Amino acid sequence: MAEKEESNPAGAPPAPESGSAPAAEGGEEGAATTSKKAAKKAEAKAKKEAEKARKAAERAAAAAASGQGGGATEDLAKDNYGNVREGKKVQVSSEAAEISLKSLDESHVGKTVVLRAWIQNARQQGAKMAFVELREEGAWTIQGVLTASAEGAPVSRPMVKWVAGISPESFVVVEATVQKPLEPVKSCRVAQYELHVTKCFVLAAAPTVLGMTLAASNRAVTNFSDEEPQPDKSVEAAVEKLSVADPAATAIPAASMLTHLNNIVMHKRSPVQQAIADIRAEVKDLFRTYLKSHGFKEFEPPCLIGAASEGGANVFRLPYFDREACLAQSPQFYKQMEIAGGRKRVFSIGPVFRAELSNTPRHMTEFTGLDMEMEIKEDYREVIFMLEGALLHIFRGIKERCPTELELVRSVYPCEEFLLPEDGKEVRLTFAEAQKLLREEGPEEFRNVPDDEDMSTPQEKALGAVIRKKFGTDFYVIDRFPEGARPFYAKLSDEDPKVTNAYDFFMRGQEILSGGQRIHDPEELEARIRQKGIDPASPGIKEYVDVFRQAGCPAHGGGGIGLDRVVAWYLNLPSVQLAAFYPRTPKRLLP
Amino acid sequence: MAEKEESNPAGAPPAPESGSAPAAEGGEEGAATTSKKAAKKAEAKAKKEAEKARKAAERAAAAAASGQGGGATEDLAKDNYGNVREGKKVQVSSEAAEISLKSLDESHVGKTVVLRAWIQNARQQGAKMAFVELREEGAWTIQGVLTASAEGAPVSRPMVKWVAGISPESFVVVEATVQKPLEPVKSCRVAQYELHVTKCFVLAAAPTVLGMTLAASNRAVTNFSDEEPQPDKSVEAAVEKLSVADPAATAIPAASMLTHLNNIVMHKRSPVQQAIADIRAEVKDLFRTYLKSHGFKEFEPPCLIGAASEGGANVFRLPYFDREACLAQSPQFYKQMEIAGGRKRVFSIGPVFRAELSNTPRHMTEFTGLDMEMEIKEDYREVIFMLEGALLHIFRGIKERCPTELELVRSVYPCEEFLLPEDGKEVRLTFAEAQKLLREEGPEEFRNVPDDEDMSTPQEKALGAVIRKKFGTDFYVIDRFPEGARPFYAKLSDEDPKVTNAYDFFMRGQEILSGGQRIHDPEELEARIRQKGIDPASPGIKEYVDVFRQAGCPAHGGGGIGLDRVVAWYLNLPSVQLAAFYPRTPKRLLP
Repeated sequence: MAEKEESNPAGAPPAPESGSAPAAEGGEEGAATTSKKAAKKAEAKAKKEAEKARKAAERAAAAAASGQGGGATEDLAKDNYGNVREGKKVQVSSEAAEISLKSLDESHVGKTVVLRAWIQNARQQGAKMAFVELREEGAWTIQGVLTASAEGAPVSRPMVKWVAGISPESFVVVEATVQKPLEPVKSCRVAQYELHVTKCFVLAAAPTVLGMTLAASNRAVTNFSDEEPQPDKSVEAAVEKLSVADPAATAIPAASMLTHLNNIVMHKRSPVQQAIADIRAEVKDLFRTYLKSHGFKEFEPPCLIGAASEGGANVFRLPYFDREACLAQSPQFYKQMEIAGGRKRVFSIGPVFRAELSNTPRHMTEFTGLDMEMEIKEDYREVIFMLEGALLHIFRGIKERCPTELELVRSVYPCEEFLLPEDGKEVRLTFAEAQKLLREEGPEEFRNVPDDEDMSTPQEKALGAVIRKKFGTDFYVIDRFPEGARPFYAKLSDEDPKVTNAYDFFMRGQEILSGGQRIHDPEELEARIRQKGIDPASPGIKEYVDVFRQAGCPAHGGGGIGLDRVVAWYLNLPSVQLAAFYPRTPKRLLP
Repeated sequence: MAEKEESNPAGAPPAPESGSAPAAEGGEEGAATTSKKAAKKAEAKAKKEAEKARKAAERAAAAAASGQGGGATEDLAKDNYGNVREGKKVQVSSEAAEISLKSLDESHVGKTVVLRAWIQNARQQGAKMAFVELREEGAWTIQGVLTASAEGAPVSRPMVKWVAGISPESFVVVEATVQKPLEPVKSCRVAQYELHVTKCFVLAAAPTVLGMTLAASNRAVTNFSDEEPQPDKSVEAAVEKLSVADPAATAIPAASMLTHLNNIVMHKRSPVQQAIADIRAEVKDLFRTYLKSHGFKEFEPPCLIGAASEGGANVFRLPYFDREACLAQSPQFYKQMEIAGGRKRVFSIGPVFRAELSNTPRHMTEFTGLDMEMEIKEDYREVIFMLEGALLHIFRGIKERCPTELELVRSVYPCEEFLLPEDGKEVRLTFAEAQKLLREEGPEEFRNVPDDEDMSTPQEKALGAVIRKKFGTDFYVIDRFPEGARPFYAKLSDEDPKVTNAYDFFMRGQEILSGGQRIHDPEELEARIRQKGIDPASPGIKEYVDVFRQAGCPAHGGGGIGLDRVVAWYLNLPSVQLAAFYPRTPKRLLP
């Protein structure tokens, strides 16, 4: 067990001090940009104060054990607060309505209510008052007030002191009366009401020192290094510099992605991560509902497959009883089987796996694919229009459904508005047109890009900038990729066999979708396989072609969207890892 | 390449014979139960006739090559039919509306329309007429009629002959006029209209001999053996017995699951499998919408994990760069992290993996989990009620949304109605009550079942029968499993520490859901881990407990539902494999 937990067990009683120390960071989420120096100083300060708090907690515990907890007189409020871990029985009114902050309204004013929430911040003011910030899912916060009465009940001075000392991020249940504050409480999302707390029980205590504070968790992550940080060194450096006067010393230091993942609970509690997760869920829902309304059926492709798709590069392989299995890199083959199997239009939403040793902002080893495939009646552009429609529906839908979440994310990760094309002015360039544009209007270094080779990432980004400037959109389609840049199953253009009926979609100059028309005629497919220098009898290939021999399969095409990329690039996050629930990278399988 | 495809390439021209042979099975889906003998006979007969058809096709192709295809005179309809593979250009009216059979109505009568569909059956009647059954997704069929006119256009005698010879399961486009038939066409789902076909082009030809006919694919699968069938032997046996007169000789033989999987395209085209897939999609949708309407948020747990969950039995392991990864057996840990991370209620729908060497009707190595987890306010039964509500919503929803699909499935897999409890009369027994019931009202062999050991599968099934008889329901909950039958994370009952706050849900006597309240206090959790004889420092365990130390986590519980089981047991299918899109078993990774 780690040293940290040993010295600060999660079950320790909350510090019965004034509470200003461990809670200090709660009120300062909106603080100005922090210099590195200030960050280190703040970290050191926090550690110092936390240590102070811990010692105070020990003193208090000792005092409580010797029967001198709240002073010499009897505490008339003693049944109204406490920690259930220490055997305290929760006694809240069974008649009081249990509220959620999101739905609090005028009808609650003057009523006694019950709320289960996290203590985001607690502080004492004088001997008789305490303020607590209570938080529910989705950054809903409200101010709670405790005032010790002259009679010592329902709230006593010891109770005020005890509640003010609850460690931030402890989970509590309170009984309170809803009141309108004299002035709106600007620091809380629920500004028009406050809770006059009469009972408060800790249901699950947080440690007195958190691995990462909520305020830190809500700062922009910029460090995605695989290297474990050296926390001791930075603390030492911060302590060294503590004497230097610096007005930003109380600002909150940003944590690295590794610190976030090592403190997954606090990572997930941060308002910005909850907002990103909510936006991600909406993207999925918008994709699903759009396709369903256009006659698509959802299906589930397998993850475990018998033979490597697409030739076997970057595939995870595993022992599977008496044979070997692979993890699917794409559901494409299975989408095609659904079409051959009599479905007109299908989609799937699920994990796909790539064993790429890439540590870039756009790669993960496991990510969520939004995939679709459809029968083509006359022209493969039917598929482009459908995918374009789905993505525009998603972009417009996020803006409409998630204004608060977008604002919150942008307050942490500022970015330029994601520009969309006007209706009917969607930007669809052929690969050759795109290369021409890059040659003519892109940076010097790309003056000679050819039309028959795939684009590099820097070329793609440069093209994105040119298109944004010229057409005023961050979303566009590049169509008709050269034959050499696409796999054997890509259908060649009837008009020009040097190009394929295949396309990529881009957001802010980065690829988010790859797709195209597939060859559905088994003879044509086999001929292309031979042209590409692949043996049609090789494992995986034979099974693929044979599916189209089983019975007549309609012309079809589709595409696969990387959900993590759509979310990350729409929000202009510095890495797809921030859009994922549990990012998987070559060095990281936990949590 | 297999012999079969060599001799019958998918691109061969359709047989220009009367077409009665390869198409014969199309009209007999509803045929009576087949004896094994009859099945074999029919198979032999089909093979014989297919061979006849193949030879005829060869003769026709030779005739066509020598310029004597449709007779000596010019075919005035020659531009109105043909196979695109042979360079025939599709010429259908660009003004004619493209229809789907599902939405055909009175407004179409007399109009010229275009339809893309599969040829389910084609036959010639006399020299001038042909009938084709055209099928779209979801078993929508319509009768098409071709009549050669005296002028030889738009339909000629050669055209009638050619269309009647199209191999079943070829994909075609037709231009036709919608007409009302003299009598409803009982053999087709669209009985009130028929299509008077004037043009017909084969877009993708099926082989003249299918690996499995549509009619065979729509028969009940009863053989789930891992052994590859010995097709030659059974054909020989059938041929031997062909002389025996048997009225059922033309009935369609049922195929084994292996034959279905080896002919995945035809498996998926069968009306019964499409109906099962549609019902499955609705189950997912009903689960999702119910939980969303109750404040649950969807999230995505990872499949690749760093340490084996639940101690490491039955886990798939794989090399992951410089370390080892496992495939998640359950998203439980990640659901709990979402709760610890500030979500009140979460759900996920995705693949889970079990490396069990089990070949039973209820096991697959990869299946879809419907998982949920929620904060518990007062009592863990809040979770039971939520899960029960979700499942009842699903059962009622299927009945309401899928009457046609249910009827179709039941015509192939007959079963007793799935009985539901009346509102307010849900059956929830404690484990002890269930064991008592089994002792008192179950079969003789279970007269001594104890209260502190988990139930066996035969016990569960016997209990299901007792409960159906006594309470009139096929859906019920068994609660408070004994301590010894549940893992370390199961919360013990406050009232009786010999039992847990954990439950299983059952359908027709088979488990479909397992869940319970989890211990959220890290000290209590660690104590339980020690009591269970597990080292709290072991990999996976330590990381699990540490999550609850990071910050205060609310009480919570949840459950995981096996989607494949819900679908299979509701429909009383003989195996979960029939409910899956691509079943994965120890012997089977393809397709």
